[in-house]
Amino acid sequence: MLREAIYHRPKQNWAYAYDNKTVHLRVRTKRGEADEACVIAGDKYAWKQTRDVVPMKLLASDELFDYWEAEVVPPLRRLKYGFCFRSGDERLYMSEKGFSPVEPDNYLTLFEFPFLNPADVFVPPAWVKDAVFYQIFPERFANGDPSLNPEGTLPWGGAPTPTNFFGGDLQGVLERLDHLSALGVNAIYFNPLFEATTNHKYDTKDYLKVDPRFGTNEKLKELVDACHARGIRVMLDAVFNHSGKEFPPFVDVLEKGAESPYAGWFHVRDFPLRVENRVPTYDTFGFEPIMPKLNTENAEVKRYLLDVARYWIEEVGIDGWRLDVANEVDHAFWRELRAVVKGLNPEAYILGEIWHDSISWLQGDQFDAVMNYPVTEAALDFFARGKTGPAQFADVIGSQLAAYPRQAAEAAFNLLGSHDTPRLLTVCGGDERRVKLATLFQLTYPGAACIYYGDEVGMAGGGDPDCRGCMVWETDKQNRELFAFFAAAIRLRQDHEALRSAGFRFLAADGGLLAYERLATDGSERFVVAMNVSERPIDAVLPVDPEDRRTPDPTAA
Amino acid sequence: MLREAIYHRPKQNWAYAYDNKTVHLRVRTKRGEADEACVIAGDKYAWKQTRDVVPMKLLASDELFDYWEAEVVPPLRRLKYGFCFRSGDERLYMSEKGFSPVEPDNYLTLFEFPFLNPADVFVPPAWVKDAVFYQIFPERFANGDPSLNPEGTLPWGGAPTPTNFFGGDLQGVLERLDHLSALGVNAIYFNPLFEATTNHKYDTKDYLKVDPRFGTNEKLKELVDACHARGIRVMLDAVFNHSGKEFPPFVDVLEKGAESPYAGWFHVRDFPLRVENRVPTYDTFGFEPIMPKLNTENAEVKRYLLDVARYWIEEVGIDGWRLDVANEVDHAFWRELRAVVKGLNPEAYILGEIWHDSISWLQGDQFDAVMNYPVTEAALDFFARGKTGPAQFADVIGSQLAAYPRQAAEAAFNLLGSHDTPRLLTVCGGDERRVKLATLFQLTYPGAACIYYGDEVGMAGGGDPDCRGCMVWETDKQNRELFAFFAAAIRLRQDHEALRSAGFRFLAADGGLLAYERLATDGSERFVVAMNVSERPIDAVLPVDPEDRRTPDPTAA
Repeated sequence: MLREAIYHRPKQNWAYAYDNKTVHLRVRTKRGEADEACVIAGDKYAWKQTRDVVPMKLLASDELFDYWEAEVVPPLRRLKYGFCFRSGDERLYMSEKGFSPVEPDNYLTLFEFPFLNPADVFVPPAWVKDAVFYQIFPERFANGDPSLNPEGTLPWGGAPTPTNFFGGDLQGVLERLDHLSALGVNAIYFNPLFEATTNHKYDTKDYLKVDPRFGTNEKLKELVDACHARGIRVMLDAVFNHSGKEFPPFVDVLEKGAESPYAGWFHVRDFPLRVENRVPTYDTFGFEPIMPKLNTENAEVKRYLLDVARYWIEEVGIDGWRLDVANEVDHAFWRELRAVVKGLNPEAYILGEIWHDSISWLQGDQFDAVMNYPVTEAALDFFARGKTGPAQFADVIGSQLAAYPRQAAEAAFNLLGSHDTPRLLTVCGGDERRVKLATLFQLTYPGAACIYYGDEVGMAGGGDPDCRGCMVWETDKQNRELFAFFAAAIRLRQDHEALRSAGFRFLAADGGLLAYERLATDGSERFVVAMNVSERPIDAVLPVDPEDRRTPDPTAA
Repeated sequence: MLREAIYHRPKQNWAYAYDNKTVHLRVRTKRGEADEACVIAGDKYAWKQTRDVVPMKLLASDELFDYWEAEVVPPLRRLKYGFCFRSGDERLYMSEKGFSPVEPDNYLTLFEFPFLNPADVFVPPAWVKDAVFYQIFPERFANGDPSLNPEGTLPWGGAPTPTNFFGGDLQGVLERLDHLSALGVNAIYFNPLFEATTNHKYDTKDYLKVDPRFGTNEKLKELVDACHARGIRVMLDAVFNHSGKEFPPFVDVLEKGAESPYAGWFHVRDFPLRVENRVPTYDTFGFEPIMPKLNTENAEVKRYLLDVARYWIEEVGIDGWRLDVANEVDHAFWRELRAVVKGLNPEAYILGEIWHDSISWLQGDQFDAVMNYPVTEAALDFFARGKTGPAQFADVIGSQLAAYPRQAAEAAFNLLGSHDTPRLLTVCGGDERRVKLATLFQLTYPGAACIYYGDEVGMAGGGDPDCRGCMVWETDKQNRELFAFFAAAIRLRQDHEALRSAGFRFLAADGGLLAYERLATDGSERFVVAMNVSERPIDAVLPVDPEDRRTPDPTAA
């Protein structure tokens, strides 16, 4: 066997507590090489009496590797373990010290999961795996109170630019909740609502006040209450990486420089604050002078932002925070944020905006999930752009499922587009069939799904700002057939536990056929999704025998 | 190139901040395969203007892999990066999305080190890399105040058993500090000093009181002051995983069961507390009924133990905590402990007792170091037991150096024996020459060294309790020649910056020859150590050309 391919290191996605009694152990081998894998496990203080051999299941595969998983419930919550592989007649054992053809005689050389402490268990809110979110960009969803229109508000439906306004507001959302209920979503993700100068509001001026163009804090409370009455949860956008240029502490530093009592709130490389050769002399989001990076290591800044996080949970009863530019803020701050948020509401969802590998944030001490863009990209490349085939798609999905703890997959935030990307229909080149397949995949994949407002009625749009168009409300301009498909897919998901669980296995990923099995965590339900992604009819026989679940390479069938 | 062998995942030992401006990037390839490796790096918001190619150096090798490292100083503290390898005429590029023979055209697919936030930088105390510790098991080091002798104290020098006493105390240590100064150590690690029933005191009764058989809190203060006056730092043993059977909260739970206000301080599976079939009905260290595991998730327990940690720093001025059974306590508790300890004394050393892979504790948020038993075992297998040859030894050392951030290597706690293992001389089968080679290695290896009391004068002893014998003070029974060797090796280390830095490279590891180069961090000094571990003379030419530092496989020379 190819020893260089075999990888395991305790913690992360390789050895973690799934709940207060269960440890998941994973290992990878070169794809197609191992016929079976098992864990040798026991209590480290009573090895001889407790040593046990636990077969591993094939969790997933990608281009290079097979990923194996076993569940172990150590009676005294502590575990020593090693791995054994069989490939034909060859056996190989793996301990922390390396490889050997026979079982290590010194069990002290094995790996350790020293103790399963509940405080370290990663527990995302249980409701998230059942959630279908609807993302609302408030300035463009519905104008329910024209008296709040900013100066120069354009007629609804015009072309969006980086700077124009159409008057969307909270009253508009309140009046359109029937649309959300008809679609069947049960959660909203709002782009920023707090006072700011831009139309996207990612440049906060006042973190404790709803933007007056959107309404009031009371209006938001009314809206959240109305959502809750319909069983719809509400998540807000927390822009804690940076503030806006009108944020009073920043204004003070702009005016007073190093003398400002707020000088330590930002990362200033040189006073006075200015922009030289397009580079601000203070840290910003990107090179954007109006978005100064907040110093989240400063005790006052921490207290202020944690108070903001607390305020909207306590005063308005929001159900979660989406954290903007989350990976540029220090881990220490996010740990404190989690303690504050979960202390107030253990069921609050903490979602980080990270587009890349996020294992360092998904260990239980920081976020519940990240915006799952790697899966977005894989789905778009396959369903929308046709850049990859089923096998390549299955490889990326396999890699993603193996890369995180199971609870991360269950609570993942899966999206096919957002205010930061071209719209799904546009990426699909206008082909509704592709939109439907991608959406069906999204809604039958583990984790929460998020529909970007308007995608469900066939809105098109390229990258920012084009993807931020005004919601189409005239029924005759909406694609109602597409809406019905979205609603049906959401209903399907909500009707079937298997579709909301983590159990996922490809049955076919070849030619024009993509098929996968979904399995309820308690084994009570199996659901098979089969899609023809080609232009021609396909005849296929799928290996849906439940006994077949340990087939090393189902995608090669 | 063997793509299955290549590994990189951001954070841990693969991509970390070394200081507030420097990021270290590492990647591994199949051993001997890559002729060169480089990093392609730039600012993610200005990729085209900032893209740069940075050559990587070969950091270390082990049996299967070469490990490459590059230092990058991103001007705006944020980084996008990928890797490029060359093997003969073949080139291979690695992004977060996988491998390609040409440079990825979409830089968004590269890896990210999103932002270097100082709060997340792992900063062990600077003094640790210059420290040589001396470990004292207080009951057996020196009896300076016979009036404190416990009942039944035996004459000094008798055979140690798990339960007997010889009357060692703090006054004894105070009177013997000249011995430490003559040896040249500059730090002490004390096994537990707090009141307890056993001779090892790992069953704490009162965390705020020096054991009366050892002295008083005032005596400890006097001792610490005397050490500080000599430039000797003092680290105490914090037994926070479990208490002793006489710890008042445990006594209360034993008496009152679930009705005790302290019931939540422990992990009780069934009341009343009892032992059935040798298994306590409450969690313990191992299966030891007198060592009940503390519930470090309980707010009262946390407050109590954090107050203990605070007390001895504030009242007595200790310089560090060694944390017993550290890997069985929750990470969340250790993060709080670090915040408390570093808040009082940023230069305090936090050392965890972990015998296994410790990457999850060495990320900057928990420990500064762990007891480096994997290196201990490698050194003993090679120098003491002769179980491995130079090449195997070099492989394990290479693997260990690559497994952690550089600052972890600099602050590692390297030991050749402790109160938990047979003594070095005994493991060496009584062969002093092996003791000397092992010790010379220990003192010329990156990280702090720790000498177990008595090893320097040739004490022998098997596993616990035999390794806990009374210190030999009669000069004629001490091996003074060995003492002189230890003192000279310590002096050598203290005279040469290169020996206390992280720069380490094997020059030869073959036959009977082990040679390695040590390099000062600022490049100001190079030091070559060459050892003949065979019984015969060896003639060898060492490749000490500084230009040769990128040789892919120096150990094969």
